[in-house]
Amino acid sequence: MKAIVIRRGETTPVLVEKPRPAPGEGEALVRTLRVGVDGTDHEVLLGAHGGFPEGEDHLVIGHEAVGVVVDPNGTSLAEGDVVVPTVRRPPNGPNEYFERGEPDMAPEGQYHERGISGAHGFMAEYFTSPEWSLVEVPPELAELGFLVEPISITVKAMEHARASRSAFEWSPESALVLGNGSLGLLTLAMLRGEFERLYCLGRRDRPDPTISIIEDLGGTYVDSRETPVSEVPAVHEGMDLVYEATGYAKHAFESIRALAPNGVAALLGVPEPWTFEVDGGALHRELVLQNKAVVGSVNSNARQFERAVDTLDGLPDRFLDDLVTGVYGLDEFERTFAEDDTTIKTAVELATR
Amino acid sequence: MKAIVIRRGETTPVLVEKPRPAPGEGEALVRTLRVGVDGTDHEVLLGAHGGFPEGEDHLVIGHEAVGVVVDPNGTSLAEGDVVVPTVRRPPNGPNEYFERGEPDMAPEGQYHERGISGAHGFMAEYFTSPEWSLVEVPPELAELGFLVEPISITVKAMEHARASRSAFEWSPESALVLGNGSLGLLTLAMLRGEFERLYCLGRRDRPDPTISIIEDLGGTYVDSRETPVSEVPAVHEGMDLVYEATGYAKHAFESIRALAPNGVAALLGVPEPWTFEVDGGALHRELVLQNKAVVGSVNSNARQFERAVDTLDGLPDRFLDDLVTGVYGLDEFERTFAEDDTTIKTAVELATR
Repeated sequence: MKAIVIRRGETTPVLVEKPRPAPGEGEALVRTLRVGVDGTDHEVLLGAHGGFPEGEDHLVIGHEAVGVVVDPNGTSLAEGDVVVPTVRRPPNGPNEYFERGEPDMAPEGQYHERGISGAHGFMAEYFTSPEWSLVEVPPELAELGFLVEPISITVKAMEHARASRSAFEWSPESALVLGNGSLGLLTLAMLRGEFERLYCLGRRDRPDPTISIIEDLGGTYVDSRETPVSEVPAVHEGMDLVYEATGYAKHAFESIRALAPNGVAALLGVPEPWTFEVDGGALHRELVLQNKAVVGSVNSNARQFERAVDTLDGLPDRFLDDLVTGVYGLDEFERTFAEDDTTIKTAVELATR
Repeated sequence: MKAIVIRRGETTPVLVEKPRPAPGEGEALVRTLRVGVDGTDHEVLLGAHGGFPEGEDHLVIGHEAVGVVVDPNGTSLAEGDVVVPTVRRPPNGPNEYFERGEPDMAPEGQYHERGISGAHGFMAEYFTSPEWSLVEVPPELAELGFLVEPISITVKAMEHARASRSAFEWSPESALVLGNGSLGLLTLAMLRGEFERLYCLGRRDRPDPTISIIEDLGGTYVDSRETPVSEVPAVHEGMDLVYEATGYAKHAFESIRALAPNGVAALLGVPEPWTFEVDGGALHRELVLQNKAVVGSVNSNARQFERAVDTLDGLPDRFLDDLVTGVYGLDEFERTFAEDDTTIKTAVELATR
């Protein structure tokens, strides 16, 4: 079968031939339909995040997949079921986090991440996966099923953000999403209805397709070149929620200043080490006197994938059309990895059914 | 009646005569028994925190009080009831936070704090207070009732810290309290039983009464001069909870490094502005990849005072004996404000019954 891999020492993915995998006990064989690409994939390609499977010279990339079961192999799945795989797998037999359905909370060393770290991903014509990791998707959502994983990332982050505010009566109205990449825009669309006033921060000039999406969703575009994050309350309003999806480390700290009293900042970016000055006294004081919270969040579990399927079903068609700017076959898979101002969300198509 | 006040422009409290207050509608008149002193009082004396009541040249200090109802004044309280007053009052008629019983979550401008900011405190022979702000205490706890307020501060902080970890299965075992002042030690005593392994950080040489208390409680003393907060995981272990009660701004950031994966840092200190360098990239990355949280917490509400009464009742007598190093009458009230290594928790005694 064909697979898209990154080889050790290289930064550009290539198409290779690999043997079709055989499902082990408790695993199903899945024919891959589509696999999305996100910022983590680009970091994996650059070697800034993740790692190769032990003893191998390449990594099959891709962690945002949707496929069709071709061999249930004794699991409760049926041939033809459309499924989305979760990302984390136990590295050396099961551990407590996987056993209780919370691999997203496993600490380093207690998980591999398919397509990212220590285990092959899904950008291949077939993959195998344990039954517990395969979340069913209604057939009519198959084409967009590759969005379930990124949506589940926000489902989890919002569960944790809301939990952090559950010790009191919290009625949030304003939310600021930092980052107008595909995750930021998906999150903005997900927060509609829950928040009365939405803002999304980027640093693009108009006309720009992401700014159009932000405004179509009823959000306000905030240009960080004009309004730094810490000045958002002065220019707009204090935010009940800040959702950081930029990976820009200063945003983690400026988010605290952007919050309204009792607000929460959800952090999702994964920056490299970077030392800089902060007014740590003022930040500390503000966290305390204004009862603010900061919550870091990574990965997501099968329950959150299930919620993400429902969420995907409720997103407006027009938004989804605008978000997905390209789906490419294996003959032009390189286009999936383009990074320019007209590319928002892309996927590779490995099969249509 | 006699009252202990701080006058504008001064930093030392003085004993003055004031008229006995008359209870307004919905208020009871309380004879004050004891009023504790904490770090916030010292900040108020120095002018670093809080403010005078509008148009007045002095502030009656003290916010950790216990007293006896002498005139119920039509409230459901009875003469002789032992009560502890909460601290926040609405500044200009009730607002939503007070109406729903969560004045601790009110933003700046929507509260006064008695004895701290904008309203007279309790260090006087009598005070009046609305019925909703008076929490009953069993008569046998009257002598130690001044500890209910500081205990309620930790009750609230722990409610928020636990809430932030309630979106997943969190089974914390290790806790580090930063600060061996009276709040730190009270917190350490409160966390016994809930946490298997307790640590408390200070910077004192042995022999020291706070180190003895830490060890009597089964905790491990961490000398910050030998083991900085960020090195605690290497020397001891990663902490499921870090509780910051030092007001030292660098601790807010170092706490993140001290946490185990999935841990939470509760911040309670109120430092002044202070700019310094942090490895913001590494902190941001660690918050995200290890699902860590930071929660700021200030003040507490009547429900949390009620929980604090039960908590006080469960603390070991020996600990309480060691914690309260001095209770002084009005003739030697200055001793209540001593700050030396043999002073832990003190109170002024205004009446014995």
